[in-house]
Amino acid sequence: IMEYAKKKGIDIGAVGIGVPGPLDAQTGVVKQPPKLKGWKDVPLGSIVQKEYGIPVWIENDANVCALAEKWMGSGRNIHNFIYILINEGIGAGVIINDELYQGTYDFVGEIGHFLCYEQGKFQYLEDIAGVDVLLYLANSQGLSVKSLEKMAELLQQDNQIAKSIVKKIATWIGSAIVNAIHMVGPQTVFIGGKMVVLGEPLIQPIREIVSHYLFGEQAVNIQFSSISSNAVPSGAGIYAIVHWLEKKSSEI
Amino acid sequence: IMEYAKKKGIDIGAVGIGVPGPLDAQTGVVKQPPKLKGWKDVPLGSIVQKEYGIPVWIENDANVCALAEKWMGSGRNIHNFIYILINEGIGAGVIINDELYQGTYDFVGEIGHFLCYEQGKFQYLEDIAGVDVLLYLANSQGLSVKSLEKMAELLQQDNQIAKSIVKKIATWIGSAIVNAIHMVGPQTVFIGGKMVVLGEPLIQPIREIVSHYLFGEQAVNIQFSSISSNAVPSGAGIYAIVHWLEKKSSEI
Repeated sequence: IMEYAKKKGIDIGAVGIGVPGPLDAQTGVVKQPPKLKGWKDVPLGSIVQKEYGIPVWIENDANVCALAEKWMGSGRNIHNFIYILINEGIGAGVIINDELYQGTYDFVGEIGHFLCYEQGKFQYLEDIAGVDVLLYLANSQGLSVKSLEKMAELLQQDNQIAKSIVKKIATWIGSAIVNAIHMVGPQTVFIGGKMVVLGEPLIQPIREIVSHYLFGEQAVNIQFSSISSNAVPSGAGIYAIVHWLEKKSSEI
Repeated sequence: IMEYAKKKGIDIGAVGIGVPGPLDAQTGVVKQPPKLKGWKDVPLGSIVQKEYGIPVWIENDANVCALAEKWMGSGRNIHNFIYILINEGIGAGVIINDELYQGTYDFVGEIGHFLCYEQGKFQYLEDIAGVDVLLYLANSQGLSVKSLEKMAELLQQDNQIAKSIVKKIATWIGSAIVNAIHMVGPQTVFIGGKMVVLGEPLIQPIREIVSHYLFGEQAVNIQFSSISSNAVPSGAGIYAIVHWLEKKSSEI
Protein backbone atom coordinates (compact mmCIF):
# COMPACT_ATOMS: atom_id res chain seq x y z
CA ILE A 1 0.00 0.00 0.00
CA MET A 2 2.76 2.43 0.96
CA GLU A 3 4.60 1.81 -2.31
CA TYR A 4 1.42 2.15 -4.32
CA ALA A 5 0.75 5.49 -2.66
CA LYS A 6 4.28 6.65 -3.36
CA LYS A 7 3.97 5.78 -7.03
CA LYS A 8 0.69 7.61 -7.30
CA GLY A 9 2.09 10.60 -5.46
CA ILE A 10 -0.38 10.21 -2.59
CA ASP A 11 0.86 11.61 0.66
CA ILE A 12 0.03 9.29 3.53
CA GLY A 13 -0.08 11.07 6.86
CA ALA A 14 -1.09 8.32 9.20
CA VAL A 15 -1.60 4.57 9.38
CA GLY A 16 -4.37 2.72 11.13
CA ILE A 17 -4.25 -1.01 11.80
CA GLY A 18 -6.97 -3.34 13.04
CA VAL A 19 -5.76 -6.48 14.80
CA PRO A 20 -7.34 -9.16 16.97
CA GLY A 21 -7.30 -8.28 20.67
CA PRO A 22 -6.27 -8.15 23.36
CA LEU A 23 -4.00 -5.21 22.78
CA ASP A 24 -2.94 -1.96 24.35
CA ALA A 25 -4.21 0.78 22.05
CA GLN A 26 -2.28 3.41 24.04
CA THR A 27 1.14 1.92 23.40
CA GLY A 28 0.38 0.02 20.21
CA VAL A 29 1.35 -3.32 21.70
CA VAL A 30 -0.47 -6.46 20.52
CA LYS A 31 -0.63 -8.72 23.54
CA GLN A 32 -1.40 -12.35 22.85
CA PRO A 33 -4.37 -12.93 20.56
CA PRO A 34 -5.46 -16.52 21.24
CA LYS A 35 -5.71 -17.34 17.55
CA LEU A 36 -2.67 -15.44 16.27
CA LYS A 37 -0.04 -18.05 17.02
CA GLY A 38 3.36 -16.76 18.01
CA TRP A 39 2.27 -13.19 18.66
CA LYS A 40 3.08 -12.06 22.17
CA ASP A 41 3.57 -8.48 23.29
CA VAL A 42 4.46 -7.32 19.77
CA PRO A 43 4.99 -3.54 19.67
CA LEU A 44 3.30 -3.36 16.26
CA GLY A 45 2.60 0.35 16.51
CA SER A 46 6.21 1.38 17.00
CA ILE A 47 7.51 -1.15 14.44
CA VAL A 48 5.33 0.32 11.69
CA GLN A 49 5.95 3.86 12.87
CA LYS A 50 9.73 3.37 12.67
CA GLU A 51 9.46 1.80 9.23
CA TYR A 52 7.49 4.63 7.64
CA GLY A 53 8.09 7.60 9.91
CA ILE A 54 4.45 8.55 10.23
CA PRO A 55 1.98 8.23 13.10
CA VAL A 56 0.42 4.81 13.56
CA TRP A 57 -2.64 3.86 15.56
CA ILE A 58 -3.72 0.32 16.18
CA GLU A 59 -7.01 -0.87 17.55
CA ASN A 60 -8.92 -4.09 18.06
CA ASP A 61 -10.23 -5.38 14.71
CA ALA A 62 -13.81 -5.71 15.92
CA ASN A 63 -13.69 -2.16 17.25
CA VAL A 64 -12.55 -0.70 13.94
CA CYS A 65 -15.29 -2.71 12.18
CA ALA A 66 -17.85 -1.10 14.46
CA LEU A 67 -16.40 2.30 13.58
CA ALA A 68 -16.59 1.52 9.87
CA GLU A 69 -20.22 0.42 10.20
CA LYS A 70 -20.93 3.65 12.08
CA TRP A 71 -19.22 5.95 9.57
CA MET A 72 -19.85 4.21 6.26
CA GLY A 73 -22.37 1.44 6.74
CA SER A 74 -25.86 0.71 7.96
CA GLY A 75 -24.92 1.89 11.43
CA ARG A 76 -24.90 5.55 10.40
CA ASN A 77 -28.29 6.28 11.91
CA ILE A 78 -28.12 3.78 14.76
CA HIS A 79 -26.99 5.21 18.08
CA ASN A 80 -26.30 1.96 19.90
CA PHE A 81 -25.13 -1.22 18.33
CA ILE A 82 -22.79 -4.17 18.68
CA TYR A 83 -20.64 -5.35 15.79
CA ILE A 84 -19.69 -9.03 16.08
CA LEU A 85 -16.69 -10.04 14.00
CA ILE A 86 -16.63 -13.79 13.37
CA ASN A 87 -13.35 -15.15 12.04
CA GLU A 88 -11.18 -17.81 13.67
CA GLY A 89 -11.44 -15.60 16.73
CA ILE A 90 -14.66 -13.82 17.66
CA GLY A 91 -14.74 -10.25 18.91
CA ALA A 92 -17.19 -7.41 19.35
CA GLY A 93 -17.10 -3.66 18.96
CA VAL A 94 -19.65 -1.67 20.91
CA ILE A 95 -21.07 1.69 19.79
CA ILE A 96 -22.89 3.57 22.55
CA ASN A 97 -24.41 6.98 21.91
CA ASP A 98 -22.76 7.09 18.49
CA GLU A 99 -19.27 6.51 19.85
CA LEU A 100 -16.96 3.55 20.16
CA TYR A 101 -17.20 2.30 23.72
CA GLN A 102 -13.71 1.36 24.80
CA GLY A 103 -14.24 1.12 28.52
CA THR A 104 -11.17 1.55 30.62
CA TYR A 105 -9.56 -1.73 29.71
CA ASP A 106 -8.67 -3.25 26.39
CA PHE A 107 -10.72 -6.36 27.03
CA VAL A 108 -14.08 -4.75 26.34
CA GLY A 109 -16.17 -6.70 23.85
CA GLU A 110 -14.05 -9.85 24.04
CA ILE A 111 -17.13 -11.91 23.35
CA GLY A 112 -14.99 -14.73 21.95
CA HIS A 113 -13.96 -15.37 25.53
CA PHE A 114 -17.51 -15.75 26.78
CA LEU A 115 -17.85 -19.06 28.58
CA CYS A 116 -20.13 -21.69 27.09
CA TYR A 117 -20.89 -24.92 28.87
CA GLU A 118 -20.46 -27.45 26.09
CA GLN A 119 -19.75 -31.17 26.35
CA GLY A 120 -19.58 -31.09 30.11
CA LYS A 121 -17.11 -28.25 30.51
CA PHE A 122 -16.73 -24.52 30.17
CA GLN A 123 -15.17 -23.47 26.89
CA TYR A 124 -14.57 -20.16 25.18
CA LEU A 125 -17.11 -19.25 22.52
CA GLU A 126 -14.44 -18.89 19.84
CA ASP A 127 -13.13 -22.36 20.62
CA ILE A 128 -16.51 -23.91 19.83
CA ALA A 129 -17.77 -21.47 17.19
CA GLY A 130 -14.83 -19.93 15.30
CA VAL A 131 -14.32 -20.41 11.54
CA ASP A 132 -11.53 -22.94 12.09
CA VAL A 133 -13.74 -24.95 14.44
CA LEU A 134 -16.57 -24.96 11.92
CA LEU A 135 -14.31 -26.30 9.16
CA TYR A 136 -12.80 -28.83 11.54
CA LEU A 137 -16.23 -30.10 12.58
CA ALA A 138 -17.34 -30.36 8.96
CA ASN A 139 -14.32 -32.42 7.99
CA SER A 140 -14.51 -34.61 11.06
CA GLN A 141 -18.11 -35.39 10.14
CA GLY A 142 -17.20 -36.60 6.70
CA LEU A 143 -17.56 -33.45 4.62
CA SER A 144 -14.55 -32.47 2.61
CA VAL A 145 -14.52 -28.75 3.12
CA LYS A 146 -11.47 -26.53 2.84
CA SER A 147 -13.20 -23.17 2.84
CA LEU A 148 -16.31 -21.40 4.05
CA GLU A 149 -17.28 -20.86 0.41
CA LYS A 150 -17.39 -24.62 -0.06
CA MET A 151 -19.48 -24.89 3.11
CA ALA A 152 -21.86 -22.26 1.73
CA GLU A 153 -22.22 -24.36 -1.45
CA LEU A 154 -23.14 -27.41 0.59
CA LEU A 155 -25.72 -25.38 2.46
CA GLN A 156 -27.26 -24.30 -0.84
CA GLN A 157 -27.40 -27.95 -1.84
CA ASP A 158 -29.35 -28.54 1.36
CA ASN A 159 -26.66 -30.79 2.84
CA GLN A 160 -28.04 -31.87 6.22
CA ILE A 161 -24.71 -32.34 7.97
CA ALA A 162 -23.55 -28.88 6.90
CA LYS A 163 -26.84 -27.38 8.01
CA SER A 164 -26.73 -28.99 11.41
CA ILE A 165 -23.13 -27.88 12.06
CA VAL A 166 -23.87 -24.29 11.06
CA LYS A 167 -27.06 -24.27 13.11
CA LYS A 168 -25.26 -25.48 16.21
CA ILE A 169 -22.50 -22.90 15.87
CA ALA A 170 -24.99 -20.14 15.09
CA THR A 171 -26.97 -21.06 18.20
CA TRP A 172 -23.90 -20.72 20.39
CA ILE A 173 -23.09 -17.37 18.81
CA GLY A 174 -26.70 -16.35 19.32
CA SER A 175 -26.58 -17.27 23.02
CA ALA A 176 -23.51 -15.08 23.45
CA ILE A 177 -25.31 -12.26 21.65
CA VAL A 178 -28.23 -12.59 24.09
CA ASN A 179 -25.79 -12.17 26.98
CA ALA A 180 -24.04 -9.24 25.33
CA ILE A 181 -27.38 -7.54 24.66
CA HIS A 182 -28.29 -7.91 28.32
CA MET A 183 -25.12 -6.07 29.27
CA VAL A 184 -25.24 -3.10 26.87
CA GLY A 185 -28.74 -2.89 25.40
CA PRO A 186 -28.11 -2.16 21.71
CA GLN A 187 -30.74 -1.46 19.02
CA THR A 188 -28.98 -3.59 16.44
CA VAL A 189 -26.37 -6.32 16.26
CA PHE A 190 -24.29 -6.45 13.08
CA ILE A 191 -22.62 -9.70 12.08
CA GLY A 192 -19.38 -9.38 10.14
CA GLY A 193 -16.22 -11.31 9.38
CA LYS A 194 -15.49 -14.29 7.17
CA MET A 195 -18.41 -16.33 8.39
CA VAL A 196 -21.03 -14.10 6.76
CA VAL A 197 -20.60 -16.00 3.46
CA LEU A 198 -22.78 -18.69 5.02
CA GLY A 199 -25.75 -16.36 4.71
CA GLU A 200 -29.25 -17.18 5.94
CA PRO A 201 -28.42 -20.58 7.51
CA LEU A 202 -26.07 -18.66 9.83
CA ILE A 203 -28.19 -15.64 10.71
CA GLN A 204 -31.54 -17.41 11.03
CA PRO A 205 -30.71 -19.51 14.12
CA ILE A 206 -29.08 -16.43 15.68
CA ARG A 207 -32.27 -14.44 15.17
CA GLU A 208 -34.34 -17.29 16.61
CA ILE A 209 -32.47 -17.62 19.87
CA VAL A 210 -32.25 -13.87 20.32
CA SER A 211 -35.95 -13.27 19.80
CA HIS A 212 -36.81 -16.26 21.97
CA TYR A 213 -34.77 -15.27 25.01
CA LEU A 214 -34.84 -11.48 25.18
CA PHE A 215 -37.23 -9.67 27.46
CA GLY A 216 -40.49 -9.21 25.62
CA GLU A 217 -40.16 -5.55 24.80
CA GLN A 218 -36.69 -5.66 23.36
CA ALA A 219 -36.74 -5.81 19.60
CA VAL A 220 -33.09 -6.03 18.66
CA ASN A 221 -32.42 -6.22 14.99
CA ILE A 222 -29.84 -8.81 13.88
CA GLN A 223 -28.35 -8.20 10.45
CA PHE A 224 -25.23 -8.77 8.43
CA SER A 225 -22.73 -5.97 8.24
CA SER A 226 -23.27 -3.88 5.13
CA ILE A 227 -19.54 -3.34 4.68
CA SER A 228 -18.32 -6.71 5.82
CA SER A 229 -15.50 -7.45 3.42
CA ASN A 230 -13.82 -4.06 3.82
CA ALA A 231 -14.71 -3.41 7.41
CA VAL A 232 -11.30 -3.91 9.02
CA PRO A 233 -9.21 -1.75 6.63
CA SER A 234 -11.93 0.90 6.31
CA GLY A 235 -12.40 1.11 10.04
CA ALA A 236 -8.67 1.17 10.71
CA GLY A 237 -8.38 4.04 8.24
CA ILE A 238 -11.20 5.94 9.94
CA TYR A 239 -9.61 5.30 13.30
CA ALA A 240 -6.29 6.73 12.08
CA ILE A 241 -7.97 9.74 10.45
CA VAL A 242 -9.85 10.59 13.65
CA HIS A 243 -6.71 10.29 15.77
CA TRP A 244 -4.60 12.17 13.25
CA LEU A 245 -7.11 15.03 13.25
CA GLU A 246 -7.17 15.04 17.06
CA LYS A 247 -3.40 15.15 17.10
CA LYS A 248 -3.24 17.97 14.56
CA SER A 249 -5.85 20.01 16.36
CA SER A 250 -4.03 19.60 19.66
CA GLU A 251 -0.86 20.87 18.01
CA ILE A 252 -2.46 24.11 16.85
CA ILE B 1 -41.16 4.98 57.36
CA MET B 2 -43.29 7.98 56.35
CA GLU B 3 -45.21 7.80 59.64
CA TYR B 4 -42.05 7.43 61.67
CA ALA B 5 -40.64 10.52 59.98
CA LYS B 6 -43.82 12.47 60.68
CA LYS B 7 -43.72 11.56 64.37
CA LYS B 8 -40.12 12.60 64.63
CA GLY B 9 -40.81 15.81 62.74
CA ILE B 10 -38.48 14.85 59.91
CA ASP B 11 -39.36 16.48 56.63
CA ILE B 12 -39.06 14.01 53.78
CA GLY B 13 -38.57 15.70 50.43
CA ALA B 14 -38.17 12.75 48.10
CA VAL B 15 -38.54 8.99 47.94
CA GLY B 16 -36.24 6.53 46.21
CA ILE B 17 -37.23 2.95 45.56
CA GLY B 18 -35.11 0.06 44.35
CA VAL B 19 -37.01 -2.74 42.59
CA PRO B 20 -36.07 -5.72 40.44
CA GLY B 21 -35.88 -4.90 36.73
CA PRO B 22 -36.89 -4.53 34.04
CA LEU B 23 -38.43 -1.14 34.60
CA ASP B 24 -38.69 2.24 33.00
CA ALA B 25 -36.84 4.64 35.29
CA GLN B 26 -38.12 7.64 33.30
CA THR B 27 -41.79 6.96 33.92
CA GLY B 28 -41.48 4.96 37.14
CA VAL B 29 -43.19 1.93 35.65
CA VAL B 30 -42.16 -1.54 36.85
CA LYS B 31 -42.52 -3.79 33.84
CA GLN B 32 -42.59 -7.50 34.56
CA PRO B 33 -39.85 -8.73 36.87
CA PRO B 34 -39.61 -12.49 36.22
CA LYS B 35 -39.55 -13.31 39.91
CA LEU B 36 -42.08 -10.76 41.17
CA LYS B 37 -45.23 -12.72 40.41
CA GLY B 38 -48.25 -10.69 39.40
CA TRP B 39 -46.36 -7.46 38.75
CA LYS B 40 -46.88 -6.19 35.24
CA ASP B 41 -46.54 -2.59 34.07
CA VAL B 42 -47.14 -1.24 37.58
CA PRO B 43 -46.80 2.57 37.68
CA LEU B 44 -45.12 2.37 41.09
CA GLY B 45 -43.59 5.82 40.79
CA SER B 46 -46.86 7.64 40.30
CA ILE B 47 -48.70 5.49 42.88
CA VAL B 48 -46.25 6.44 45.63
CA GLN B 49 -46.06 10.02 44.40
CA LYS B 50 -49.85 10.42 44.62
CA GLU B 51 -49.95 8.83 48.07
CA TYR B 52 -47.38 11.14 49.65
CA GLY B 53 -47.30 14.15 47.36
CA ILE B 54 -43.52 14.23 47.04
CA PRO B 55 -41.18 13.35 44.18
CA VAL B 56 -40.43 9.65 43.76
CA TRP B 57 -37.66 8.02 41.78
CA ILE B 58 -37.45 4.33 41.17
CA GLU B 59 -34.50 2.40 39.81
CA ASN B 60 -33.37 -1.16 39.33
CA ASP B 61 -32.40 -2.70 42.68
CA ALA B 62 -28.98 -3.85 41.47
CA ASN B 63 -28.29 -0.38 40.11
CA VAL B 64 -29.06 1.33 43.43
CA CYS B 65 -26.86 -1.25 45.20
CA ALA B 66 -24.00 -0.30 42.91
CA LEU B 67 -24.61 3.37 43.76
CA ALA B 68 -24.63 2.58 47.48
CA GLU B 69 -21.35 0.66 47.17
CA LYS B 70 -19.91 3.63 45.27
CA TRP B 71 -21.03 6.28 47.77
CA MET B 72 -20.82 4.48 51.08
CA GLY B 73 -19.02 1.18 50.62
CA SER B 74 -15.77 -0.34 49.41
CA GLY B 75 -16.43 1.01 45.93
CA ARG B 76 -15.60 4.56 46.96
CA ASN B 77 -12.12 4.48 45.44
CA ILE B 78 -12.86 2.07 42.60
CA HIS B 79 -13.64 3.72 39.28
CA ASN B 80 -15.06 0.69 37.48
CA PHE B 81 -16.93 -2.12 39.06
CA ILE B 82 -19.89 -4.45 38.73
CA TYR B 83 -22.26 -5.09 41.62
CA ILE B 84 -24.04 -8.45 41.36
CA LEU B 85 -27.18 -8.72 43.45
CA ILE B 86 -28.10 -12.35 44.10
CA ASN B 87 -31.61 -12.90 45.44
CA GLU B 88 -34.33 -14.99 43.80
CA GLY B 89 -33.57 -12.91 40.74
CA ILE B 90 -30.03 -11.95 39.80
CA GLY B 91 -29.12 -8.50 38.52
CA ALA B 92 -26.09 -6.32 38.08
CA GLY B 93 -25.30 -2.64 38.45
CA VAL B 94 -22.36 -1.31 36.48
CA ILE B 95 -20.20 1.63 37.56
CA ILE B 96 -18.00 3.03 34.80
CA ASN B 97 -15.73 6.00 35.42
CA ASP B 98 -17.31 6.52 38.84
CA GLU B 99 -20.84 6.76 37.48
CA LEU B 100 -23.77 4.41 37.19
CA TYR B 101 -23.83 3.12 33.64
CA GLN B 102 -27.43 3.01 32.55
CA GLY B 103 -26.99 2.62 28.83
CA THR B 104 -29.89 3.76 26.74
CA TYR B 105 -32.20 0.93 27.67
CA ASP B 106 -33.42 -0.34 30.99
CA PHE B 107 -32.15 -3.83 30.37
CA VAL B 108 -28.50 -3.05 31.05
CA GLY B 109 -26.93 -5.41 33.56
CA GLU B 110 -29.72 -7.99 33.40
CA ILE B 111 -27.19 -10.69 34.11
CA GLY B 112 -29.92 -12.93 35.53
CA HIS B 113 -31.07 -13.36 31.96
CA PHE B 114 -27.72 -14.56 30.70
CA LEU B 115 -28.13 -17.86 28.92
CA CYS B 116 -26.52 -20.93 30.44
CA TYR B 117 -26.53 -24.28 28.67
CA GLU B 118 -27.52 -26.62 31.47
CA GLN B 119 -29.07 -30.05 31.23
CA GLY B 120 -29.22 -29.97 27.48
CA LYS B 121 -30.98 -26.67 27.05
CA PHE B 122 -30.48 -22.93 27.37
CA GLN B 123 -31.76 -21.52 30.64
CA TYR B 124 -31.58 -18.14 32.33
CA LEU B 125 -28.91 -17.82 34.99
CA GLU B 126 -31.42 -16.84 37.66
CA ASP B 127 -33.50 -19.92 36.90
CA ILE B 128 -30.57 -22.20 37.70
CA ALA B 129 -28.77 -20.11 40.33
CA GLY B 130 -31.27 -17.91 42.23
CA VAL B 131 -31.88 -18.25 45.96
CA ASP B 132 -35.19 -20.05 45.43
CA VAL B 133 -33.51 -22.55 43.10
CA LEU B 134 -30.74 -23.20 45.61
CA LEU B 135 -33.26 -23.95 48.39
CA TYR B 136 -35.32 -26.09 46.02
CA LEU B 137 -32.27 -28.13 45.00
CA ALA B 138 -31.24 -28.60 48.61
CA ASN B 139 -34.67 -29.91 49.60
CA SER B 140 -34.97 -32.10 46.54
CA GLN B 141 -31.65 -33.69 47.46
CA GLY B 142 -32.83 -34.62 50.92
CA LEU B 143 -31.73 -31.64 52.97
CA SER B 144 -34.44 -29.98 54.98
CA VAL B 145 -33.62 -26.34 54.44
CA LYS B 146 -36.07 -23.47 54.71
CA SER B 147 -33.60 -20.62 54.67
CA LEU B 148 -30.17 -19.62 53.46
CA GLU B 149 -29.10 -19.29 57.09
CA LYS B 150 -29.86 -22.98 57.60
CA MET B 151 -27.90 -23.74 54.43
CA ALA B 152 -24.97 -21.72 55.81
CA GLU B 153 -25.10 -23.82 58.98
CA LEU B 154 -24.92 -27.01 56.96
CA LEU B 155 -21.92 -25.64 55.10
CA GLN B 156 -20.19 -24.93 58.38
CA GLN B 157 -20.89 -28.51 59.41
CA ASP B 158 -19.13 -29.55 56.21
CA ASN B 159 -22.27 -31.13 54.75
CA GLN B 160 -21.17 -32.51 51.39
CA ILE B 161 -24.52 -32.22 49.63
CA ALA B 162 -24.86 -28.58 50.67
CA LYS B 163 -21.30 -27.89 49.56
CA SER B 164 -21.78 -29.45 46.17
CA ILE B 165 -25.03 -27.55 45.51
CA VAL B 166 -23.47 -24.23 46.48
CA LYS B 167 -20.37 -24.95 44.44
CA LYS B 168 -22.40 -25.71 41.34
CA ILE B 169 -24.49 -22.58 41.67
CA ALA B 170 -21.43 -20.47 42.42
CA THR B 171 -19.71 -21.83 39.33
CA TRP B 172 -22.63 -20.81 37.13
CA ILE B 173 -22.64 -17.36 38.68
CA GLY B 174 -18.89 -17.20 38.17
CA SER B 175 -19.22 -18.08 34.48
CA ALA B 176 -21.71 -15.25 34.03
CA ILE B 177 -19.30 -12.91 35.81
CA VAL B 178 -16.53 -13.93 33.38
CA ASN B 179 -18.82 -12.97 30.48
CA ALA B 180 -19.85 -9.70 32.10
CA ILE B 181 -16.20 -8.82 32.77
CA HIS B 182 -15.41 -9.41 29.10
CA MET B 183 -18.06 -6.88 28.15
CA VAL B 184 -17.26 -4.03 30.53
CA GLY B 185 -13.79 -4.60 31.99
CA PRO B 186 -14.24 -3.73 35.69
CA GLN B 187 -11.53 -3.65 38.37
CA THR B 188 -13.73 -5.30 40.98
CA VAL B 189 -16.91 -7.36 41.18
CA PHE B 190 -18.96 -6.97 44.35
CA ILE B 191 -21.34 -9.74 45.37
CA GLY B 192 -24.41 -8.66 47.30
CA GLY B 193 -27.93 -9.81 48.08
CA LYS B 194 -29.33 -12.52 50.29
CA MET B 195 -26.96 -15.20 49.09
CA VAL B 196 -23.91 -13.62 50.71
CA VAL B 197 -24.74 -15.34 54.01
CA LEU B 198 -23.26 -18.48 52.48
CA GLY B 199 -19.81 -16.90 52.79
CA GLU B 200 -16.61 -18.52 51.56
CA PRO B 201 -18.21 -21.65 50.01
CA LEU B 202 -20.05 -19.25 47.69
CA ILE B 203 -17.28 -16.81 46.78
CA GLN B 204 -14.43 -19.29 46.48
CA PRO B 205 -15.73 -21.16 43.40
CA ILE B 206 -16.61 -17.81 41.81
CA ARG B 207 -13.03 -16.61 42.32
CA GLU B 208 -11.68 -19.85 40.91
CA ILE B 209 -13.57 -19.78 37.64
CA VAL B 210 -12.93 -16.07 37.15
CA SER B 211 -9.18 -16.34 37.70
CA HIS B 212 -9.04 -19.46 35.54
CA TYR B 213 -10.80 -18.06 32.49
CA LEU B 214 -9.85 -14.39 32.28
CA PHE B 215 -7.12 -13.20 29.98
CA GLY B 216 -3.83 -13.48 31.80
CA GLU B 217 -3.30 -9.83 32.62
CA GLN B 218 -6.69 -9.14 34.08
CA ALA B 219 -6.69 -9.26 37.83
CA VAL B 220 -10.29 -8.63 38.77
CA ASN B 221 -10.99 -8.65 42.45
CA ILE B 222 -14.10 -10.56 43.57
CA GLN B 223 -15.41 -9.60 46.98
CA PHE B 224 -18.58 -9.42 49.02
CA SER B 225 -20.37 -6.12 49.18
CA SER B 226 -19.37 -4.20 52.27
CA ILE B 227 -22.87 -2.81 52.69
CA SER B 228 -24.83 -5.82 51.60
CA SER B 229 -27.75 -5.86 54.00
CA ASN B 230 -28.60 -2.18 53.58
CA ALA B 231 -27.58 -1.78 49.98
CA VAL B 232 -31.02 -1.47 48.36
CA PRO B 233 -32.56 1.12 50.73
CA SER B 234 -29.29 3.07 51.04
CA GLY B 235 -28.80 3.14 47.31
CA ALA B 236 -32.41 4.05 46.64
CA GLY B 237 -32.04 6.94 49.08
CA ILE B 238 -28.86 8.12 47.39
CA TYR B 239 -30.56 7.84 44.03
CA ALA B 240 -33.46 9.99 45.23
CA ILE B 241 -31.14 12.56 46.85
CA VAL B 242 -29.12 12.95 43.65
CA HIS B 243 -32.24 13.34 41.53
CA TRP B 244 -33.87 15.67 44.04
CA LEU B 245 -30.77 17.90 44.02
CA GLU B 246 -30.70 17.85 40.23
CA LYS B 247 -34.37 18.82 40.15
CA LYS B 248 -33.88 21.62 42.69
CA SER B 249 -30.87 23.02 40.90
CA SER B 250 -32.74 22.99 37.59
CA GLU B 251 -35.54 24.98 39.23
CA ILE B 252 -33.24 27.77 40.38
